[in-house]
Amino acid sequence: MSFFERLKTAASAEWRAYTEHPFTNGLADGSLAEPAFRHYLAQDYLFLIEFARAYALAIYKAPALSDMRDAAAGLSAILDVEMDLHVKLCAGWGLSPGDLERTEPAAETLAYTRYVLDTGMRGDLLGLKVALAPCVIGYAEIATRLATHPQAAAAGNPYRDWIAEYAGEAYQDVAASAQAQLDRLADLYATPAREVELIAVFKEATRLEADFWEMGWRV
Amino acid sequence: MSFFERLKTAASAEWRAYTEHPFTNGLADGSLAEPAFRHYLAQDYLFLIEFARAYALAIYKAPALSDMRDAAAGLSAILDVEMDLHVKLCAGWGLSPGDLERTEPAAETLAYTRYVLDTGMRGDLLGLKVALAPCVIGYAEIATRLATHPQAAAAGNPYRDWIAEYAGEAYQDVAASAQAQLDRLADLYATPAREVELIAVFKEATRLEADFWEMGWRV
Amino acid sequence: MSFFERLKTAASAEWRAYTEHPFTNGLADGSLAEPAFRHYLAQDYLFLIEFARAYALAIYKAPALSDMRDAAAGLSAILDVEMDLHVKLCAGWGLSPGDLERTEPAAETLAYTRYVLDTGMRGDLLGLKVALAPCVIGYAEIATRLATHPQAAAAGNPYRDWIAEYAGEAYQDVAASAQAQLDRLADLYATPAREVELIAVFKEATRLEADFWEMGWRV
Amino acid sequence: MSFFERLKTAASAEWRAYTEHPFTNGLADGSLAEPAFRHYLAQDYLFLIEFARAYALAIYKAPALSDMRDAAAGLSAILDVEMDLHVKLCAGWGLSPGDLERTEPAAETLAYTRYVLDTGMRGDLLGLKVALAPCVIGYAEIATRLATHPQAAAAGNPYRDWIAEYAGEAYQDVAASAQAQLDRLADLYATPAREVELIAVFKEATRLEADFWEMGWRV
Repeated sequence: MSFFERLKTAASAEWRAYTEHPFTNGLADGSLAEPAFRHYLAQDYLFLIEFARAYALAIYKAPALSDMRDAAAGLSAILDVEMDLHVKLCAGWGLSPGDLERTEPAAETLAYTRYVLDTGMRGDLLGLKVALAPCVIGYAEIATRLATHPQAAAAGNPYRDWIAEYAGEAYQDVAASAQAQLDRLADLYATPAREVELIAVFKEATRLEADFWEMGWRV
Repeated sequence: MSFFERLKTAASAEWRAYTEHPFTNGLADGSLAEPAFRHYLAQDYLFLIEFARAYALAIYKAPALSDMRDAAAGLSAILDVEMDLHVKLCAGWGLSPGDLERTEPAAETLAYTRYVLDTGMRGDLLGLKVALAPCVIGYAEIATRLATHPQAAAAGNPYRDWIAEYAGEAYQDVAASAQAQLDRLADLYATPAREVELIAVFKEATRLEADFWEMGWRV
Repeated sequence: MSFFERLKTAASAEWRAYTEHPFTNGLADGSLAEPAFRHYLAQDYLFLIEFARAYALAIYKAPALSDMRDAAAGLSAILDVEMDLHVKLCAGWGLSPGDLERTEPAAETLAYTRYVLDTGMRGDLLGLKVALAPCVIGYAEIATRLATHPQAAAAGNPYRDWIAEYAGEAYQDVAASAQAQLDRLADLYATPAREVELIAVFKEATRLEADFWEMGWRV
Repeated sequence: MSFFERLKTAASAEWRAYTEHPFTNGLADGSLAEPAFRHYLAQDYLFLIEFARAYALAIYKAPALSDMRDAAAGLSAILDVEMDLHVKLCAGWGLSPGDLERTEPAAETLAYTRYVLDTGMRGDLLGLKVALAPCVIGYAEIATRLATHPQAAAAGNPYRDWIAEYAGEAYQDVAASAQAQLDRLADLYATPAREVELIAVFKEATRLEADFWEMGWRV
């Protein structure tokens, strides 16, 4: 069993509560209330900014030049591609860049993003990657599941673009390569004692991701 | 008006919502449900550990040896005095050290502590001190107000020791000296543009402190 | 006088010792011994890696999204362009990528790069940019001066490509924009007390850059 | 063989060049020129300040409360005891506190201290402790060897107090406990791949300590 599989197994309850959260099912069948989605989207924009900071931290932390280049590619994908996509997606939902910038971070947004950043600063690159994994790899797994729902791509489902983006090949490749890098780092650096600590980080980050969906409801 | 007074004025709504939170009134008249207090206490223990990390960061960040010594004294007060007091207080409420260590951090605990740590790492010592101020200085102000309540010191008020500790001279001196240091640092380092950013940090940290009281109810 | 001009004025002795170091004059007239240049080049490669880490730190530290994008562009210029150019330049001097990777950092390389990184982590973005300025902006000033030398572009000068690269429009633009950003950050964030500290950082970083030339001789 | 023994074995050439540096022999037989010692002492004072910052970082990084308390005790020993001792020692050599504060850091001082701080920030607590080991543990080993020299405690040896302090029980206990903690952390966290990287850090830090002696000569 790969390291990432061991993490998921150890955190199976948290992982299910996050990846099968009712909020995601509301995306699959299109039943999610639009204000909840707009609330989620605006917070996710703030999230992406902190995420970019976490990737910058990964460059600073990287033990080898190849890891630096990997993290720099990820950073560029966030700052130059994903955030622009997000701004366009938000525009389609009536949220202007000005609206996004005036959005105040929800406590759940602060909790997850700062937990990742502090975990990353405190330890080494592996710890940072574990804290990022529920987001990077989890979204790919969630979107793959949602895409199998009969309504996922229906013309009447307002969330079909969102699902298609994360279920699409480009994002799935990003997630697969993040998982491969995580497994490689763990093979190099994870002792049994370390794995216990990393499982705790993974559980916490997964819980905080579930809270992030929960925050979406609370418009 | 001193820098700290300006912060409080700019964040007056947040400051009142935090310092006059109904949870604190339940301490003053003894009406707070005991499970809520125990929940708060256990989370506050986890909070103190991260707080000690923030003081360590203040030492690392300090531009002058005198600032290092100040922060080191604050750190020692947390690790060697306040945490022991906390363990004793918790024991009186039926919480053993083992209970405390098994406590999982609430999202509100993670949100405030990691926000402080990341804000502190990101900027300079002044930014870190602003993020810490709602806690360090706010608790002194809260306890002073609570201590004027007719039931605050009543034999039947289970929270009288807690109020007395923070309203007492020792803690009030700690808070006064933190406020003096904050004002001194701001006189040296705060430009008008910086003050705008620091006010945003102060508001956020104050909101997160109010959330922390709110978390107490949610047993 | 702009902030950067004030820095140079306050550190005029250090600035001259660095920007007019005899090592640079040996580049201008082609008289520098080739082993010294090769030694310098290999150390400069190690320097660039740490420099990329410093730019990553600037992204993590940036108070605004626009500052993050600026730093990310700088990072990409280092990792994707400057390092490749460097590898090609080194190849022309008989240094393979493998040679570069096996090179041990000189004490001078460690001193400057880690001073920049620690200064950057300790304070805010402005402090980091001041520590980087002697390198980023200084090289443009040095190359501009060297390019006026009669031998600078002579076919027999083995260092003419190096001079042309840093005296060329592309690099001059990078340096001009770094200087503009520095002045803008200082206008926002530098108090008189802060300026005193920043001058000390600038002097130190400039001294360490002069040491870096000096290291070149010591083959 | 314990982890620390493995580090020393892997870096045996660097370790000997540092711990048996001629500068130390000049302390043992009293032949070291006094200006060299004064130069070393003043730089060592600046070194201690950065060392205190590194211990503060160890508190921030510590994965467990017991590690935080260990590092806090070490920090207090530096700030409250060792620096005062140092100031007294310096006074005996005609260096006032004002002299110490006006001292500019030598490149060797910057190189070692910032290398430790950046290594510590970049990775986890174990990496930081490895970078600190040549200093903390090495001084105990050096002083123990020097103390066996016939002139080490002679009334005419101006360096007998310095030798006695580091060869004395108090400091030897500090070093022994640092070594025990290092071995314990390595047992928990060092994989074979990690050990290769930690050996490289240890070699570098040891080389930088040898440079620090070398700097002493260069008055």
